[in-house]
This record gives sequence, structure tokens and C-alpha cells, in this order.
Amino acid sequence: MVLTLGKLAEQVGGELQKGDPDCEITAVATLQNAGTGDISFLSNPGYKKYLYKTQASAVILSPENSADCPTAVIASSNPYVSYARAAALIVPAPSLKQGVHPGAAIEDDCEVDASAWIGPGCIIERGVVIDAGVQLDGGCFVGAGSVIGAHSHLHANVVVCHDVSIGMRVNIYPGAVIGGDGFGLANDDGKWVNVPQLGSVVVGDDVEIGSNTTIDRGALEDTVLEEGVRLDNQIQVAHNVHIGAHTAIAGCTGISGSATIGKYCMIGGGVGIVGHLEIADHVVVTGMSLVARSITEPGVYSSGVPAQDNVSWNRNYARLRQLDKLARRVQSLERRLAGGKKQENG
Amino acid sequence: MVLTLGKLAEQVGGELQKGDPDCEITAVATLQNAGTGDISFLSNPGYKKYLYKTQASAVILSPENSADCPTAVIASSNPYVSYARAAALIVPAPSLKQGVHPGAAIEDDCEVDASAWIGPGCIIERGVVIDAGVQLDGGCFVGAGSVIGAHSHLHANVVVCHDVSIGMRVNIYPGAVIGGDGFGLANDDGKWVNVPQLGSVVVGDDVEIGSNTTIDRGALEDTVLEEGVRLDNQIQVAHNVHIGAHTAIAGCTGISGSATIGKYCMIGGGVGIVGHLEIADHVVVTGMSLVARSITEPGVYSSGVPAQDNVSWNRNYARLRQLDKLARRVQSLERRLAGGKKQENG
Amino acid sequence: MVLTLGKLAEQVGGELQKGDPDCEITAVATLQNAGTGDISFLSNPGYKKYLYKTQASAVILSPENSADCPTAVIASSNPYVSYARAAALIVPAPSLKQGVHPGAAIEDDCEVDASAWIGPGCIIERGVVIDAGVQLDGGCFVGAGSVIGAHSHLHANVVVCHDVSIGMRVNIYPGAVIGGDGFGLANDDGKWVNVPQLGSVVVGDDVEIGSNTTIDRGALEDTVLEEGVRLDNQIQVAHNVHIGAHTAIAGCTGISGSATIGKYCMIGGGVGIVGHLEIADHVVVTGMSLVARSITEPGVYSSGVPAQDNVSWNRNYARLRQLDKLARRVQSLERRLAGGKKQENG
Repeated sequence: MVLTLGKLAEQVGGELQKGDPDCEITAVATLQNAGTGDISFLSNPGYKKYLYKTQASAVILSPENSADCPTAVIASSNPYVSYARAAALIVPAPSLKQGVHPGAAIEDDCEVDASAWIGPGCIIERGVVIDAGVQLDGGCFVGAGSVIGAHSHLHANVVVCHDVSIGMRVNIYPGAVIGGDGFGLANDDGKWVNVPQLGSVVVGDDVEIGSNTTIDRGALEDTVLEEGVRLDNQIQVAHNVHIGAHTAIAGCTGISGSATIGKYCMIGGGVGIVGHLEIADHVVVTGMSLVARSITEPGVYSSGVPAQDNVSWNRNYARLRQLDKLARRVQSLERRLAGGKKQENG
Repeated sequence: MVLTLGKLAEQVGGELQKGDPDCEITAVATLQNAGTGDISFLSNPGYKKYLYKTQASAVILSPENSADCPTAVIASSNPYVSYARAAALIVPAPSLKQGVHPGAAIEDDCEVDASAWIGPGCIIERGVVIDAGVQLDGGCFVGAGSVIGAHSHLHANVVVCHDVSIGMRVNIYPGAVIGGDGFGLANDDGKWVNVPQLGSVVVGDDVEIGSNTTIDRGALEDTVLEEGVRLDNQIQVAHNVHIGAHTAIAGCTGISGSATIGKYCMIGGGVGIVGHLEIADHVVVTGMSLVARSITEPGVYSSGVPAQDNVSWNRNYARLRQLDKLARRVQSLERRLAGGKKQENG
Repeated sequence: MVLTLGKLAEQVGGELQKGDPDCEITAVATLQNAGTGDISFLSNPGYKKYLYKTQASAVILSPENSADCPTAVIASSNPYVSYARAAALIVPAPSLKQGVHPGAAIEDDCEVDASAWIGPGCIIERGVVIDAGVQLDGGCFVGAGSVIGAHSHLHANVVVCHDVSIGMRVNIYPGAVIGGDGFGLANDDGKWVNVPQLGSVVVGDDVEIGSNTTIDRGALEDTVLEEGVRLDNQIQVAHNVHIGAHTAIAGCTGISGSATIGKYCMIGGGVGIVGHLEIADHVVVTGMSLVARSITEPGVYSSGVPAQDNVSWNRNYARLRQLDKLARRVQSLERRLAGGKKQENG
């Protein structure tokens, strides 16, 4: 969609500091690759080097960078958010489909809103409710008794098992599985007995769930994602996990059973979270950390070990294997240096 | 299903220590949320605080907790197993389906038992055998020549590649892939040449495979999961891995090629297991550990690094990068303290 | 296919050092399990113990092992590559299918080559191009405007989202998702605003993508896999990642946004790569390492911590949590030993 700079500034919460308000913007692009008609943005300071020579028609940036911009400027206190809004306005969203493809299989007693789209190969089991504007791209499975809230979008090959509740405006990317049985095992003299997984999954409004992410149903109570949660790809959420509103979690993270994560948290990629613990609101966990105890205070927590050259690492690791002994040797040195008397007596 | 307490105690291997044997139990619930007609259980001591005020009609617990329970008690030496059995008795399993949905595609020369269910969108290639009572929910692919043993359940969108053998009573959760080609590469002067993956996958009886877990076929011999193995979600099992009977593995663990894991092992989540090694029976590996060498003795093994506040961790990690040097400095101090003579000479 | 030893040696780049050139080879097998008519190979020295008693009709190996082989020998400077070629010659590839299964759903304006196969349950959206010889096993989704290059193979239930470009001879294993939206989020006072993901994914020729691997589309530019890249199962490739030609990456590795990985790299399993960094050509990263900064020189890099018995590890880890303090204590000891004068003054 074509928008003038003046209109755009208004709609994205920015201020047109430089440039013609009637200049037409037709597309978005990076600072490096933008040309006439494109709007770009500067948020990450690492990309400022591209600002000076950008060919964009306009740039969204913080007021302090305005003077360095060779072209029109929309100044914003949060240029990344303003850019996100601009891009959503300029680039047309794919048009919505309606109806039921003849290659879908819908069991009895379902309520499918007339404005929803059920793509080819979709399987809708008994008693499912599909609300207004829902899009099921194709190859999706929605198990008996589940509810898909209005304007939610299940991309291709998503599986929602039985009796799951999905909120409104939820995006679920391809291959995600919501509501598989939790990993509940009781050990009977060496052999495993399955513990029936009788809870479900409740996904709040405005949640996003990445490709091939898996969210297990609860054992007795439900697994819960509150509103606005963002899950990247290939995240594993075990049974009875509770994730607070507006928390974002990066890819490949695994969350063990009954862990409770607060609101407004940011969890990095490849993190492991042990079960039956609590993480407070506003906690940040950096990538590849292991959260092994409850975190009660907001803040940043880490244990990821950055790589170094293999020879150095092997030497260091060999010492790490013996670190307790090394510490005892230091204690012993300290005792010896603490005075001849102690040593003679001790 | 409604059961009396007396009957239930008998069937779950417990003893009715307190309460009316004719009391009717209609559902299961947690200690916190149970009400009249519900049976609950106490296994994890962390939940004992909820026992004192539970509204459950009865609780399954260890004899030593019996006195603290305000209501009827089924005492069991293994309350979690007894609860699992009770829940399976009380809560009706979903009824089985039979027949072939018209939206399934079945090639020639297949044997599909009349008591099996082939759901919509399933694809059954040439020469497949589907035994009695098998349930294929929908969207499943079973490649040429594979066999699915009696009473196994492939949930939605499961892929079983060609010539794979699945045992009896195997549960495979949505999106799991059994029998993709192993990652076999030969390096020809920088470029990769694929090594044909000519083995298969053999899955024993009573195995469970979690959502989006992947199990590659062997290169020449087969990848093998013995009976009773439990795999959680998003586990990667590479070619020619062998997993011993009744071993349970938590989510996001990756097992490299030709690793052999013993029987009755418990492997935590996010663990990495290097290829071509052996793990003995009865080994426990805690979460996010890296198993880099064979483990020959039963026991518990670890290397996961729990997170701490980021500032402390960065300081500690900076030292870890130099740990070998620190150890040498300690050695040097020890030498200097070992006596003036050494120092003068050395 | 039956081949004589003489012919085979010629075709795999080896030399028939011992044995009858007219001996017929009908199959491949391991050294341990081979019998008459089988050819085997020795590449990993760990398996040399099986060479002495092998019953294979012939073995492919390095010239220096020739004398230890009891049977016919094809000597090769790269026996694993020669074996891979031999196996591909001897074992017939599955025959290709042609046509469109009636259970596939193909939208308008697609170009599907007559020599391609579109299996049951496949969904081909508007404007897709499917080139010569392409195989879509079944249950695959190809989004609007995507191109699948000649002789590529999408195994069951693969999802290729809209406007993605897949090269020639690309193998994509079951459940992989190419082109889901990147995890682009702007934080607006605690709530997340989606940043439209307007780039795509470009996959070069001769790439392999493992089961349930996910590759996100770029935010503005494309995510790129150059020719010959090999990705194992359950790898997560975030938006705008660029992977250089002939790089191989093992399972469960996660690559954050805008990371650039060089050519001819080998990345181990379970590795985490932080975003916005660069890895040079010919870099090797061992399993479960965290790459947190750019790597500018070829070489081997590591930070995976191998497991040890849990008691020792807990002791060592307790010290690691205090490592900075320990280092300061060593510094203090060094200062005290450096001479009474310093100590008195300092």
C-alpha cells in the first residue's frame, strides 16, 4: 500500500523531522539496499555505518541519529516498533480465505464459522469449535473438543490434540504440536507405567508458537500460556508448565514439567529449565543456560560457556574436572601462609 | 468409570487403611483441587503441604503419610504407580475406531487388519502391514514395506519411512519421524558425498515416542529401541543408535550415531551423547550434560552448569577461560612454599 | 545391481589390489556381518579389529591396511568416499514416481513438470513451480509462489512456505519446515509487536535438510543456504542466517538471527550460535559449544563440558560458582609471597 511520509509518521507514532510529507513510500528495505520509494530504519547501532550513504527515501530512527541521516527522517523514541508498524501498513497482509476445502475431513457436531477457512487435508474431529476468521492452511489436525479462537491462524501441518483451548489471534507455525501427552511415568520395579495425562493446554490471546514447537497437555491441571507469549521454533514445553503474559522464549529451549515462568521474561535460545521451580517476572536468561533453581528476583541470569580454541578449552576443562582439588590446594596454601604457628599446631 | 474404594484399592495394589470401602470414586484430581468423589495422590513430598486440607474423597499415599491425611486412604508402597493405575481405571480411554477413512490413500499389496483404523489423509505405501487394533489418527505416512504392530497408536501427522518395524502397543505422538536417512557423509576433497543409509529402524513393544522426535534409520545395520523405552518430545536419535529396554529419555536430548545406551537408564533433558560410545545399564545422566566418553559403571553423571546472576557468571567465566593458567600459578606457589632450596635451585 | 570387482574398482576411484576382477558383488555389509557376494569397507580405525576375520568377498580400504585383509581388496586413498559410491551403485535407488495423485490439491497458475510426482495429500498453492523429476512423497505443503528445483525430493509432510526458492537435487526429510516467519519482535512497553518477516529462504543446489529441521524466512533480506550444505535433524536456522557452501551441521544445533557461517565448516550437535556474528571458512565447532563471538580464523573451537560422576561434578561446580573469588585468593597469595616489603606497603 502506498502511503505518504506525513501519514506514515502519524500512524507509527513518530515525527517527520526532515523531508516532504507528500513523498510516497511504497516498500520497506534495509539501509544498505533501500532505494527510491523505500523506507528503512535504524535500531541496532551496529548498522549505523550504513546510515550515512543510504538511498532510502526515508529512515525511521531515534532523534539523536537524525542529524546523521542523508534523507527524510521519521524520528521515534522506539524506532523498531515504529518500523514494525510501518512495515505492517505498507506491505499487504496475505488475503484471508473462507470456506471449507472439499479435501478437508470434518466430523460431526463441529461449529465452523462461515468466515473461517479450513484448508485441504485438514482433519477436524467431533465437537470442535472454529471461530470467526480462523485460517487453517492445510494438513492441520484439530482433535475432538478443541476450540480455536477467532482470527487465529494455524499454518500448515499444525497438530492441536483433543480438548485444547486456543485463544484469539494466535499464530501457530508449521509442524507445531499442541496437547500431546505429557511425559508422565511411574516406575514400577524398573518398568515404566504411563500416568494418564488428563489435563489440557490453554493458550491465551495473541500468542505466537513457532515451527515444530511442542506443548504437552497437563497431567491433571492444564499447561498454560498466558496472553501475548511468544515462543520461537523447536521449543519443548512439558506438562503443567505455566508461562506468564508477554514472555518471549527463543528457539530450542526446553522447559520441564510444572515449571512456572513469570510475565515479561526473556529466555534465550537453547536454555534448559528444570521442573517444579518458579521464575519471577522480568527475568532474563541468556542463551544455553541451565535454570536449576527458582529465580525470585528480576535480573539477568547465565551459565552458557562461550567457546574458545579447542586446545585451550581442553586444558581448561581438564582443570575444571579437578577444580575442587585446586580450591583445596589454595586453601592449604592460605593456611600455610597464615603463620608458622597455625601450621605447627595444625 | 465409577469404582468403589474397596475395589480400587484391590486393583491398584494398595490397602484401604481408612475410609468406607463402598465410597464411590468418579474422578481423579490434585490434592489442592479435589472434591467429593475424587481420588488424589501424594508422591512428591513437595506437595505434602496440600494434604492436610485436601477435600478429596480419598488419597493414595505411602503408609508413613497416612496419619496426616484427613480423609480416606489407600496406602501403597509406590503411590505414584498405584495412582497411575487408578487413573487408568477411572478415566475412560478414548474409544477405538475401526476401518479406513475414504480420505486415506492405500497402495497395493498392503495388509490392513479389519480392526485397525486408518484416519483421513493417511498414506500407506506398497507392502505395508497394519496389525490388529492399530490406530492411525490422520495425516500419517507409512512408507513401503513397514510393519505396524498390533494395538500401536500413531497420533496425527506421524511419519514412518520405508521398511521400518514398529512393535506392539507402541505410542508415537504427533509429528515424530521414524526412519529418515541417517546423517552419513563422506568428505571428498571438501564436498560431501552421501553414504546410502541402507539399514532401518526396529522399535520394540511398549515403546513411547514423543512429539516431533526423530529416529534415523541405520547406515548398514538397524537403529534399535528395545521394549519399554520411553522417549519424550524433540529427541534426536541418530543412525545405528541402540537404546536398551526400559530406558527413559527426557526432551531435547540428542544421541549421536552408533551410541549404545544400556537398559534401565534415565537420561535427562537437553543431554548430548557423543557417537560410538557405550553407556552401561542403570546409568542416570542429569539434564544438559554432555556424555563424551563411554560410561561403564551404573551411577549418576553430570556436567550441566546451573545459572547464576549474569555479573557473577561473567566474572567466573572469564576465569574459566584462564583456568589452566590459574592452576599453574597455584603449582608455582606450591613449589615456592615447598622450601627455599628448591626455589634457589630451580 | 550386480557388479564385478574390476568394474567396481574402476567406478569408485580405487585399485583392485587383491582378488578376482570377475568376482560378482551383489550387496554391501559391515565387516562383521558381510558374507559371500558382499563388499565391505574400513574407514574408522576403531573397526579394524573386525577386518582380520571378515567373510566379505571384498573390502574397500586404505593401501596401508591391505596386507591385513584376508580377502579381495579395493584400495582407495579415501575408502569412505569409495564405499559411498560403491553402495550407491550396488543398491538400487527407489524408483521415481510420476504424475499427480488425485488426493493432491493444486491451486491455479502452477507449473508442475510432467516428470514430477505430487503424492497424496500434497497441497500446492497458487503460482508454484515444480521442476523436472521432483518427488513430493505425500502430505507436503508448498506455499504460494515457491519454486522447487529439478530432481529435488521432499519426503513426507515437509512444509515449504510461500515464495521460497529450493535449488536442484535438494533432499528435504520429513517434517522439515522451510520459510516460517522469523522470530522478529519489537518491544513496545512490555508488549511484543510482530515485525513483518518480508524476506524469504533461498536453498542452493545439492543441499540436504534433516527431519524436523526448521529454517525461518528473513526479515527483509533472505535466509540463505549455499550449495552443498548438509543439515542434520532438528536444527533451527533463524532469520537472515547465511550458511556457506559445503558446510555440515549436526543435529539439535540452533543458529540465531543474522549469523553468517563460512564455507566448509563442520558444526557439531547441540551447538548454539549467537546472532549477528561471523564464522570464518573451515571452522570446526565441537558438540554442545556456544559460539558467542565471531570466529575469524580456521580451527577447532569448543566449550562443551563432558560429564563426570555427579558427586565430583557438584563439588567442582560449587567451586566454579566462586571461581573469580578463588582467582583473587591466588592473586593475594602471589602478592604476599612476592616479598614482605610489598605487603607492608600495600
